[in-house]
Order: sequence, then structure tokens, then C-alpha cells
Amino acid sequence: MSDERLQRVLSCLSPVARQLDVLPSGRTAPDTPYVKLDTNENPFALPAIVMQGALNALERQYLYPENDNISLRDAAASAYGVTTDHVIAGNGSSELLGLIYRAFLAPGDRVAMVSPGFSFNRKLAMLQAADFVEVALTDRHSLPIEQLLSSPAADTKFILVANPNNPTGLFVPVADIERLVAQSDRLIVLDEAYVDFAPDNGLRLLNRYSNLLVLRTFSKSYAAAGIRVGFGFGHPELIGRLRNIQNVFNMNVIGQAVGISILAHRAAYEDNHRHIRHERQRVTAELSQLGFSVTPSHANFVLARVPEGQDGRWWQAALEKRKILVAFFPDRGLENCIRVSIGTKSQMDAFLVAASDISTRLETRHC
Amino acid sequence: MSDERLQRVLSCLSPVARQLDVLPSGRTAPDTPYVKLDTNENPFALPAIVMQGALNALERQYLYPENDNISLRDAAASAYGVTTDHVIAGNGSSELLGLIYRAFLAPGDRVAMVSPGFSFNRKLAMLQAADFVEVALTDRHSLPIEQLLSSPAADTKFILVANPNNPTGLFVPVADIERLVAQSDRLIVLDEAYVDFAPDNGLRLLNRYSNLLVLRTFSKSYAAAGIRVGFGFGHPELIGRLRNIQNVFNMNVIGQAVGISILAHRAAYEDNHRHIRHERQRVTAELSQLGFSVTPSHANFVLARVPEGQDGRWWQAALEKRKILVAFFPDRGLENCIRVSIGTKSQMDAFLVAASDISTRLETRHC
Repeated sequence: MSDERLQRVLSCLSPVARQLDVLPSGRTAPDTPYVKLDTNENPFALPAIVMQGALNALERQYLYPENDNISLRDAAASAYGVTTDHVIAGNGSSELLGLIYRAFLAPGDRVAMVSPGFSFNRKLAMLQAADFVEVALTDRHSLPIEQLLSSPAADTKFILVANPNNPTGLFVPVADIERLVAQSDRLIVLDEAYVDFAPDNGLRLLNRYSNLLVLRTFSKSYAAAGIRVGFGFGHPELIGRLRNIQNVFNMNVIGQAVGISILAHRAAYEDNHRHIRHERQRVTAELSQLGFSVTPSHANFVLARVPEGQDGRWWQAALEKRKILVAFFPDRGLENCIRVSIGTKSQMDAFLVAASDISTRLETRHC
Repeated sequence: MSDERLQRVLSCLSPVARQLDVLPSGRTAPDTPYVKLDTNENPFALPAIVMQGALNALERQYLYPENDNISLRDAAASAYGVTTDHVIAGNGSSELLGLIYRAFLAPGDRVAMVSPGFSFNRKLAMLQAADFVEVALTDRHSLPIEQLLSSPAADTKFILVANPNNPTGLFVPVADIERLVAQSDRLIVLDEAYVDFAPDNGLRLLNRYSNLLVLRTFSKSYAAAGIRVGFGFGHPELIGRLRNIQNVFNMNVIGQAVGISILAHRAAYEDNHRHIRHERQRVTAELSQLGFSVTPSHANFVLARVPEGQDGRWWQAALEKRKILVAFFPDRGLENCIRVSIGTKSQMDAFLVAASDISTRLETRHC
């Protein structure tokens, strides 16, 4: 095979794509027999009635999916009190985030995110050759509004805010979000991936502000991470342009059907959400007793600072040796933290037993 | 809602996105009770063993899909005799086409397609603000190689060729494809969406040429249009860069599982493919008897020129009145043609009865 031929092909890539690494074909860790508490899934079966929607859809697998996800968007509009042209649907909110980056950012443009935040955003900015500005969340209970309204954040094409925040689990009052949206002349992309575990949400602001785009996903609160269902809600002028750059037939018939079925049966998840809030409280209390400092969470995970003098990455590895996966972030300020997803009672029991065991051994060693 | 606020947001869109139309929230025609022969689906159930793969995957719906579609890519590599790093998987080949356009085309760049071709490509070029060059297929039995090797096609970033061609159904010998790939210094994107209905395919050329990228889909020959499964095969240096710009968790667990299951059970589709070739022959013969001129097809559709003095769009409408959907293309040279997908025996019976009835009434009227 002629290398010269390959080099000629690669020289035709766009400047951004030319500089990209060739993604290695890596392996992922096996799901079992690990207790998987590292990616904030919701480890419960679909309600029987939702599963039936999926099975029915499998019977029409040979037909192209409905164009433009229209029935799914109708259902979401109706469930959330907007009109269909305010809604875009995708394979998780990650697909929709990608569309927003592509629609707004040309090389050299800037985007801002309240930090710490979903690290995937850094990669999306890189793919557009855009600068990524991070504005630190310093106060636990409010947004850094002044910084978001001044340079460099104010000079960006849009601003990302997650509420509840990931990975802290902190929730700021919707009044704060409204202040930012009202005072900013930028688009505010409000990622509400975890909002079903929180006391309030920002969807009602859509009626008053055209510079707001709200993202939702069914990966966390509706136990459908594997099905890939996400929504964006915003002004029809903006949503219509995002839909215009979206892949044709982006979602499959199962994604559409499960989405519609979940929207029709959200009440079937009440026990699920109650369980997660209950376990979140139990894990918070028990970790505190072990000397962890746990950020009060409004999501389906907790961010826990390990006991004084210990190290987050070390804890992650110690738990992994006991077949328990939790998340660790090397970002500044998070080096001594682990993020633990809230799963089933038996998963959380296994995690707490392991954490207690590791603590005890550490104490014994220190004596 | 302040219009000024909206205008400020829209002014932050990239130059391309700013000029896009707002996609209207249109309705699609209902699937039933129409006989749907307009989008080349394969209207058969999944083989039972493939369906079982889908059902098993539904049980792990709460977990994120496997990263980077690794098992699906492994399975495709093994089925098609390449290594995993030669393979990218997506929600149909349409997702992969989108990635190729994004990787190669900056505003003002050019791309070429052998024409007539899949019209979706025009939109993809428009989204990159790229020029779209069409090179007409003039000889029914060979590629316009000279034109593809000279300006303006030779100055493009890549060249698209579909074999079998859509919408004609014509198949050119793989030796022709090889001549083009060998003599061109551009990437040739060979769309083999319909190749399982043809006598040969171009995958073996991958061993010898690094400027070839072959696209496959399971929408046509494997009755899975609704599941969205497509593959790209090419040099790892190119495939790795395309994977790098692909959305994280792009396919859902059902897409991955059905893809793997089909790859393991391709033999279960032999009857299906035999049926389609048989019906294609029958429809070709009967349409010819009605005065249509049918292009010899190697795909799961036929392109039929309506009888002398009649009009393609009129025929499409006349069939639709009888609840039969076929495709019509306003492109030059296709105005007097309809494209008819090959479906089940009863669908084709219904189509042929309707076509014969329309013909008879036309003749009666002319008498």
C-alpha cells in the first residue's frame, strides 16, 4: 500500500481533522462482575409498559424511522408544555450538544462553561477548533453570574451551565439561572441531565427568554442510557436550524418508541426516584461517618472528598480492586474526590461495605 | 419575548448555520394502509435468531452502550475479512457520510458525485458550504472515469460513487472501480448500500488502496432500516480520524446487538435475497409488457421509464391514489421515471395490478 497515496488523502482532510489523533480501538472494562457506579446510570429495568413499547417497535424494524422524530417530539412537547417546534430529539443529549457546537462555533470562536462540568464539552470545542473558557463555580450555592457576564465568558458564542452540576451534584436556584439568562446577551445552554432528582427545573423560563436552550436526557432518571434518548428545548428559530443540520433518521425506531413510552408513563418512575433520593441520603450519611466530606447532592450521584490526607485516585483504585467502579477526576480541586453513582440497594451496600473495609484497614495501618 | 434577544443569539450562529432555513415540523405520510415501495426497505421480519439478539439487548437498556461500538466493529471486521481498526459503525451509512463531509470539507471546498446519485449528498455539501460537482453517468455499463480524473472532479476533496447506483440500479464491474481508485489521487467513497443484491463487491480493493472508503448499510439487504446500522471500511489512519469526530455513544444497545446478530447470521437472509432477485425479475418483465422501459437492476428496486408520451410524476400520483407509494425524481433525465422498491410478493402483486389498471384506463382514454 502506497504511503504517498494515503498522505494525499489525509492532506485533503479539513485543518481540524488533519490534526486529530487517530482514535485507538481501545477495549472497555467488562460491565460484570463489577458494581458499576462510575457513569451515573440508573440500574433498573424499564417499567413493563415501557418495555412493551420497545417490543412493539421491534416489529417494524424494516421501515425507516419516522421522519424528524415527529411523534417523539410531539409527545415531549405535550409532556413538557411547549409546542413541537420548540423540541429537538437525539441519541442522548450528547448528540444535541454536538449539534449546538457545530451550529455556533467556527475555528477561533469561543465557548464558555461553568466549571467543573461535563468534560465531553472540552472535546466538542476542540473539534470546532474553538477556545474553551472555564468559569469556576466558587460559591456552592450560587452561579458566578458576574464572571459569566464579563470577559472572556461574555465574548463567547454560548455559555454552558449544568443544573444540577456534574460532578458536584450542586443545584442552584432557578432564580439564579433566570438572572443569568435575563442579563446575558448570549445563548445559555442549560444542561438539566440530572434535574429529575432536584427540587425544581428551568423549563418555564423558555416562555420568557429566547436565549435559553434546555437539554434533557432519559439516561439518568429514566433508566434508558443504553437506548439514547435526549431532548433540547428552545426557540423554534434556533431549534429549526439545529434540526436542519441533524443527521437524517438519526434515532432508531426503538429510541423513538421508548422515548414516547417513557413520556407517557413518567409516573411509573416515582418509586425509582424515591429510591435514589433515599439511597443518596443513606450513602451521604454513612460516608460522612467514615470521614468523607460529601457535597449535598441533588443528582443520582454524590461527590465525596476522601478523608484528610488521603487521595481520590488511590481510593478509586482501592475500590476497583474490590470490583467497585467509581469515577475520579484529575481536575484541580477534585483530586481528592470520588464520584459515586447511586444504584440499587445491594450495589450501595456493596460499595459501603468496601468503603468501610478500606477505611478500617487504613486506620489499622496508621496505628 | 424580545426579538432583539433572539437576533443576538442567531447572530452568534456560524455563517453556514445562520443561512439555513428553519426546518418546518412537517408530517410524514402514514405507513399504512399504503403499499410502501418508495424508500427501498426490505419488508420482512428479522430472522428469529436476530430478533433474540435484540430482545437480549433490551434487558441491559439502563447501561450506556459499549464504548466506540467495539464488539460490533470486531464482528464486522471478522465477517468482512479486515481488522477492527479498518471499521467504523454508525446509525446507518447516512451518519458515516455526514462524518466524511465534516472531516474533509471546509467552506469553499469541493466534492464530486457520480450522478444521478443519492440526493442527500447535496444537502451534506451545503451544510459544509462546499461546492457539489456532479459527473453524469452517461454509459450504462461503465464509470465516467476520464471525467472523474479531470477538472473539476479531480480538484475535489473526495469523490462519491455508488455501486449499484441509486436510483438507476446499474452495477459497474469492480474492475472499473479499481481503475478509478488506482488512477485517482483523491479519496473514493464507494457507497455499496445495495451491493448484496449485486454479483460482486469492492471490499477486496481495500487491501491494495488506501484512498478507498467503502460504505455498507443493513437497511436494504438485512431488513433493518429502522434499527440504523451502517459501516465504513477504510485505512485505519482515516477511520481513526472519523471515529474521533463521531458522537460518543452514537448507537444504542439495540443497534449494536442487532448488527452483531445479523453479522453472525447472514446466511439466514439467503431466502430473502433470492426472493428479491426473483420479484425484481418478475416486476421488470411485467412492467416491460406494459410499455415501461426498465433499467436492468442489481439492487432491490427498479427504475422504470414510463411509456412514451407519459409522465413520471403523473404516474407516481396515479399510483398513490391507489395507495401505492413509489419514488419520483425531478432531476434531468429522470422526469419520466419512477423508482419502485421490491417488496413482498403481495406488495408487488398490488403494484402490478395497479400499474396494469392505470395502463388500461390510459389506453381506453386514448382510443
